Amino acid sequence: MKADMKAIKNFLLNLQSRLCAALETEEISHQKFHEDAWSHEKMGSGLTRILQGETFEQAGVNFSHVIGEQLPQAATIQHPELIGAQFEALGVSSVIHPYNPFAPTAHLNVRYFQAKKLNGDIVWWFGGGYDLTPYYGFDEDCIHWHQTAKTACDTIHPDFYARFKKNADHYFYIKHRKECRGIGGLFFDDLNTMPFENCFSFLQAVGNSFIDAYSPIIVKRKSQAFTQKHRDFQCYRRGRYVEFNLVYDRGTLFGLQFGGRTESILMSLPPKVQWKYNWTPEKNSEEEKLTGYYLKPREWI
Amino acid sequence: MKADMKAIKNFLLNLQSRLCAALETEEISHQKFHEDAWSHEKMGSGLTRILQGETFEQAGVNFSHVIGEQLPQAATIQHPELIGAQFEALGVSSVIHPYNPFAPTAHLNVRYFQAKKLNGDIVWWFGGGYDLTPYYGFDEDCIHWHQTAKTACDTIHPDFYARFKKNADHYFYIKHRKECRGIGGLFFDDLNTMPFENCFSFLQAVGNSFIDAYSPIIVKRKSQAFTQKHRDFQCYRRGRYVEFNLVYDRGTLFGLQFGGRTESILMSLPPKVQWKYNWTPEKNSEEEKLTGYYLKPREWI
Repeated sequence: MKADMKAIKNFLLNLQSRLCAALETEEISHQKFHEDAWSHEKMGSGLTRILQGETFEQAGVNFSHVIGEQLPQAATIQHPELIGAQFEALGVSSVIHPYNPFAPTAHLNVRYFQAKKLNGDIVWWFGGGYDLTPYYGFDEDCIHWHQTAKTACDTIHPDFYARFKKNADHYFYIKHRKECRGIGGLFFDDLNTMPFENCFSFLQAVGNSFIDAYSPIIVKRKSQAFTQKHRDFQCYRRGRYVEFNLVYDRGTLFGLQFGGRTESILMSLPPKVQWKYNWTPEKNSEEEKLTGYYLKPREWI
Repeated sequence: MKADMKAIKNFLLNLQSRLCAALETEEISHQKFHEDAWSHEKMGSGLTRILQGETFEQAGVNFSHVIGEQLPQAATIQHPELIGAQFEALGVSSVIHPYNPFAPTAHLNVRYFQAKKLNGDIVWWFGGGYDLTPYYGFDEDCIHWHQTAKTACDTIHPDFYARFKKNADHYFYIKHRKECRGIGGLFFDDLNTMPFENCFSFLQAVGNSFIDAYSPIIVKRKSQAFTQKHRDFQCYRRGRYVEFNLVYDRGTLFGLQFGGRTESILMSLPPKVQWKYNWTPEKNSEEEKLTGYYLKPREWI
């Protein structure tokens, strides 16, 4: 079966709607998502949806469909045979920054790429995944997150969870801090060794399960009492999110190099952030437990 | 005359002291600089000096002397002949984030590099410069800043100001925002076409003039009355500083790739930052004048 881009596009737009609806359900302020549709003669089009409320200080859910004359460097470093290739990409990206420091930041990306090699051959692949970035850790949340990811993976292939969980631990890593960004989840790229239909089914399983993985955690944490100390720590840790996204994240660098819509790409950056020179948490504090325990690659199930 | 590294090191440590002393004089809270000396068996050593006060929400003045087995990518992109070269680098970097939104952020870097090519030849060069990032613009401050830079350049070469001012406009540019980071100043790299002594004199003129360029502006702006609206705009605009430093700044990427002391490298990031999705200033406001007028390359003198 050949790549069915129409089916992919329908799935992605539908996923975007369902994710936005699920988040709106949990938004205490009853704020709704604001929509910005954009299109660019040469680069393609997209629909950026942003919610700024009380539960969600900022939640962004982007759909985009871009076409380009040549793949940016961020996409060819691992595939030199695709340097100079024309490409087309469809994807949904979401980054959700809750206000409550006990509620973790979540990230989802599901994407489809096809590129035309210089010899005329078309290559296609799927990529994506999700990861969770807590500021204060809860074992039960980590277990639920990873169990949901595993259940989704197992519907397609018994090895996928272990493989893509390990990938996520490796990918969502802040090299200059020697720290993981969060507790991981799934990360896959260049998925095209199964038939198109199976790869696409896996993409759907990942996208759909993100909502099941995240919603119960938000329900549990969105109203948990916190103090200014917790909020300060959250804003401080958000600095790490910025560092990862601007220095390492392939999707962000791809978007900026490609010349995409900057405000859509950078919706992933947290609304309020603090850097404190050489700050370290108190010994045996909850804040120390974040980096010392939760942000180490760990088998949660 | 051969490179005199001892003289360079003395100048740089002395510049660091003088700059810190000048900033302490303007610090309303009478806070002093805190010092962190670091050394690493293989990588070299440094002295990081940080002031967190009322005038200066954060001011960092770093000295470092690093040695490496091979130049990181950030330094060889423009010099493929130096890929794999052993190197040694001495420098002072400073980034100063005042609390008052009417007081601009300032940045200085002066550095000396020498590298050993694979054929054994030693090459050396100087680089550096300074630039100013206002949140609210004042023509008189911009003129004073650039006039001081020009006066310093003119002591060495009549063409240097024009050349290095243009370089700064080009270098301190946030491509994905299509915005300059600030009102510019000076930027030079690979300076080695004059005799060593003249190049070093120029480095000294640049370093010394930074204090003269910045101090009077701080004196004038540090106590100017402001409102929360001004402070919010400052924190929002500081997001651009983060974007530039983490996505484009060669010194930052060099340091992170080299595996340097992260807290010293990232002292350049502002203490409090905001991102607001798709925010734009009101028409004809002071905030709009920043990007529409001050952050365009402009002949200030």
